[in-house]
Formats: sequence, structure tokens, C-alpha cells
Amino acid sequence: MTSTLDRDTRTDLSDLDLARAEFRDQLVDAGLLVRSSLDGLYGRSGVFEDVIDVIDTAVRAAGREAHGSSAQRFRFPPVFPRESFEKTDYIASFPNLTGAITTFTGDNRAHAELLAARSAGEDWDHFLGSAGTMLVSAACHPAYSMLTGDLPAGGTTLDVYGYCFRHEPAVDPARMQAFRMHEFVQVGTPDQAVEHRESWIERGQSVLDHLGLEATPVIANDPFFGRAGRMLAANQRNDNLKTELVVRLYGDLDEGTAVVSCNCHREHFGHTFDIRTADGEEAHSACVGFGMERIALAMFRTHGLDVTRWPSALRPA
Amino acid sequence: MTSTLDRDTRTDLSDLDLARAEFRDQLVDAGLLVRSSLDGLYGRSGVFEDVIDVIDTAVRAAGREAHGSSAQRFRFPPVFPRESFEKTDYIASFPNLTGAITTFTGDNRAHAELLAARSAGEDWDHFLGSAGTMLVSAACHPAYSMLTGDLPAGGTTLDVYGYCFRHEPAVDPARMQAFRMHEFVQVGTPDQAVEHRESWIERGQSVLDHLGLEATPVIANDPFFGRAGRMLAANQRNDNLKTELVVRLYGDLDEGTAVVSCNCHREHFGHTFDIRTADGEEAHSACVGFGMERIALAMFRTHGLDVTRWPSALRPA
Repeated sequence: MTSTLDRDTRTDLSDLDLARAEFRDQLVDAGLLVRSSLDGLYGRSGVFEDVIDVIDTAVRAAGREAHGSSAQRFRFPPVFPRESFEKTDYIASFPNLTGAITTFTGDNRAHAELLAARSAGEDWDHFLGSAGTMLVSAACHPAYSMLTGDLPAGGTTLDVYGYCFRHEPAVDPARMQAFRMHEFVQVGTPDQAVEHRESWIERGQSVLDHLGLEATPVIANDPFFGRAGRMLAANQRNDNLKTELVVRLYGDLDEGTAVVSCNCHREHFGHTFDIRTADGEEAHSACVGFGMERIALAMFRTHGLDVTRWPSALRPA
Repeated sequence: MTSTLDRDTRTDLSDLDLARAEFRDQLVDAGLLVRSSLDGLYGRSGVFEDVIDVIDTAVRAAGREAHGSSAQRFRFPPVFPRESFEKTDYIASFPNLTGAITTFTGDNRAHAELLAARSAGEDWDHFLGSAGTMLVSAACHPAYSMLTGDLPAGGTTLDVYGYCFRHEPAVDPARMQAFRMHEFVQVGTPDQAVEHRESWIERGQSVLDHLGLEATPVIANDPFFGRAGRMLAANQRNDNLKTELVVRLYGDLDEGTAVVSCNCHREHFGHTFDIRTADGEEAHSACVGFGMERIALAMFRTHGLDVTRWPSALRPA
């Protein structure tokens, strides 16, 4: 998505930001989202959550169609150990999106000093230290540490769903700092990983079709950080490792918003988490991630803000 | 619960810790929880989540019985602005449980230094700074900032449900660092707050009855930090502001685990968030919180680890 912005002219960007702010205000005025004092952090109304449930029903149906009952369901909390986070190498590629958790481990006296600083209107962050935990950046990240060792012969398929955090405050309601991702993850041989990623492009597309959304598959790259990141992004595109299903929330003002992402990680997680196939090779992995809030926003944009007027098959109960 | 531990003898405590570790291992061996490298952080299996749904169906039914459709549903992400967190005064009372979020905002060069430190096996936390956000400590905390101003005549009732974080790594599976809380919150006059808290003691009890749990109401206090905290805890008990519904997970080894908490906050949030009643007075508030994971654990302890053998009315679909 970064590349899209790079290509916009200054004037287009401003129109785009106006369109984003207008959509956000509409969602807030309709009572679907609740603003906070920070961009990208919103409360969700009951109706918004009902729409999430409608979407998830379609996602789960696609999962059953693809994997029968062989995808093991796991739900991880939004916080996971630093030790696992380190193995994702996320801090190398996306330091600016990372969320590390700090807490207070001092005594009465240190606490009194913290409170005195706070009363004086000063910063009190330096009284805190690492809690040994990180916010989850992608729903599948906490899952890999439980696969360390040897996989069964057919590999492993996981169904994971949870809250993710990315520190990127933005006016665009489709770029939240905290959002949910429902993923199906395949860990196994290189072929299994490639086949998983590719088959989910079409399957993801039919989920979006079912929800009445017009989506287009686009070869994409992750927003790798900094100078070194540019090469990683180019390699990812050249090697065709990431396809996003994109919906145009803002017409021609940008190239659309990714709502589903189909990714092959190759041996990245297999290597860092020491996961091996039944043949003793480094495991490959792939995942499809459904961006639940983005799909909900695409539905509001497409079918209107009043769900009682949505097509009956999509209307929340 | 702190007070309970204080009263245990050294030997009992050790038996208690053994019982806790044994229960945790049973849950892990049964595939209901997935261990991580840190105490108090677990993955949940699909079956565990199905049990959470069974519980939530009962909680929602009680909410409808109590409040009809007048309780407004909101769902907040696990992260909220520092600005709102400050108004909860949580850092004054529970600094040790707090989770503050840090992130990287530096340039290419600073990132290279971070990665060099990381490669050398050194700490890299000092390259991070506050992200302006905090983990949610109680499900209702992110809700108060939207009530700043004047309430309608009857006050406001909220239904909030979300992930909470408390930094208290523990062997006891019932003391998680990340867990879900479903709350009904009343904000209005002092009488409305008191009546909300008190009526939910009995109503909470009937939810637990329905789930086949034996629970006892106990006058309780929050685990306020440090020396000053002891007085706050004593006052909370003397003023009868907190009642917990307690289930004995470990027989006589401790005085039980709080699974539901009914709390009156008096004018605390009304004052700090500047919320006023229709009469222009500082609003009072009260909440009931259902600890979803703890109730699930109580059900596994009571009905067994194999849900297919549970009473049919409680069995997940």
C-alpha cells in the first residue's frame, strides 16, 4: 500500500485524505465506530460486531470447504512472549509498527517517585521496564512456537483468529492500530505452502463475492522498513510471495485497500522456530489473512451504513 | 485474593502451588490450553473457545433480563490511549499490573544500531519510546471517555466485552496475564450505581448456577499496590464497594477464585472523566465483570475436562 501512496501526486493525496476523513466521520456519526483521542483506535458498536460475525461465518465456511475439519482452531490473546516475537524477526523488518510492553516492577519508593513525576506533568515512562511481552503483529505469530519440532506427514493446518497491533496512526478508518485478523495457516513442505497460498487467492475472492464486494487480486509487498526494506519488498514482489485482494473504498483516489492477504513465508518461520517436515527438512509456511475490520468497512462502503437496508442474505440477525 | 494468600501457611501455599500446576498441566495435556514460554499466557483451543461462547450466551441472557435492550453494546480493542488511561488513575493503584506500549520511531541509522545490539545479544528496549497507548486493564476503562459531558436522565448502561491485560505471571491457570472480561456498566446517580452493583450480585450468582457452578459471594478488595494501597483496600471493604463471586478451584487449599466481580466506583470515573448526571452532579458508576477464562476453568474443574461428557444443556454445540 505504501507504493500506492508514493505514486499519488500531492493534490490527489489531499483529496484522498479528505475522502478518508469523510468516511471515518460517517462511520462515527452513524454510531458504528467510536472515536478515541488517537487516530486508528476505535470502539466498535454492537452492529459493527454483528457485521464482523456475518463476515466470520463466511470465512469459517470457506475454511471448512478448504480443509474440512483438519484445520486446528487456536485463539491467542493479543500479547505474546518476547522470546517468540524475536523468532518472527518482525523487529528487523517492521520496527515502526511494533508494540513492546513495559510495566512497573519497582518498590514503594520508586512508585512514589513515579507519581510525583506524574503530578508534576512529567513523563513517567522511564520508571517502567520490559514486561517480557509484545503485542501480536499478525494473528499467526504466536502459533509457530507450538510447532517447534517435527510435523506430521501431511503438515499442519491452523485456523487462528485474534487481535493484531500495528503502530501506524492514520486518518483512514481502514488503517487501524488494533484490528482482527482471521487466518488459515499451512506449515509443511514447500509445495504444500505454495498450494495453500495460491488456492486461497480464489477462495478468498469467493468469500468477498459472497459478501457482495468487488475485489481484485494484486501482487503486493509488505511495507518493509527503511532502505534495506526496499530490496526486501522488491524481492517479495519478484518472487510472487504475496497477493492481496483489494477493494476500492475511495474510488480512483488510490489503488484500493487490501482486505485479504495470501502469503508464502517460504522457510522463514520453519527456520527461526525450528519446525521440520516429516522428512526432516525445514518446514515452509503460508497463510491467508482476512482483515476483519477492513472487510466490514468495505461492506459499509458498498451496501451503505444502514444494515437494515442490506441485502437480506448479508443482514446481521 | 492477596489477603487469602497472606493467610496461608508456608506448607499450604506449597500444596496450593502444586494443585495449581497440576490443574494447568491437565488443561495443557487435554489440549484445552497451549503453553507459551511465559506463565499466564496461553493459546486457547477451539473447544475452550466454544465453552467461552456457552458462558457468554448465559451472560448475555442475564444482561437482557436485567436491562432489556437498553444496555448499549460496545467492543473496544485491547489497546487504548494513554490519555484515557491516565484518567482511570490505574497507575497510582496498580502500577505493577500495568502494560504501557512502546514502539520504534527512529530512522535507518537508529534501526541499524538496534539490530546491532540485538545481534550482540544485548537489550534493545532503550531504542523504543512510548507509543501513546496502554493495554486495557479492565474492559470498561476505554468506555468512560465517550461519556464525558451530560448523561441522559436515566443514566447510561453499557455492555462491554474485551481482552484485559495484567502483568502478574503465575503458575495458576486462573491468573492469566491476558484474559477476557464481559461487563455491564451503569453510569448515573449514586442510587443507580449502588442498585446496579447490588442487583448483579444475585444475577451473577444465577448465571453461575445455570452453568452448574457452586459460587459464594464474598466481600472483597482490589490488590492495591504498596503501603498506601493497604488503606485503600481496607476502605473498599469497610465501605462494601466490591463483592466477588468465588468458586473453589482448589478445594480447601485457598479461599477460592473470584470469577465474577460486582463493583461500585462511586464518583471516581465521573470525576476524572468529567461525566455528569442530568442534574449536573458528578456521575457515579458501577460494574459487574464476568471473568470469562476463570468461569471456563471453573466449568472444566466442575464438569471435567471432556466436554462431550458435560450435562447436555451446557455442552458446546
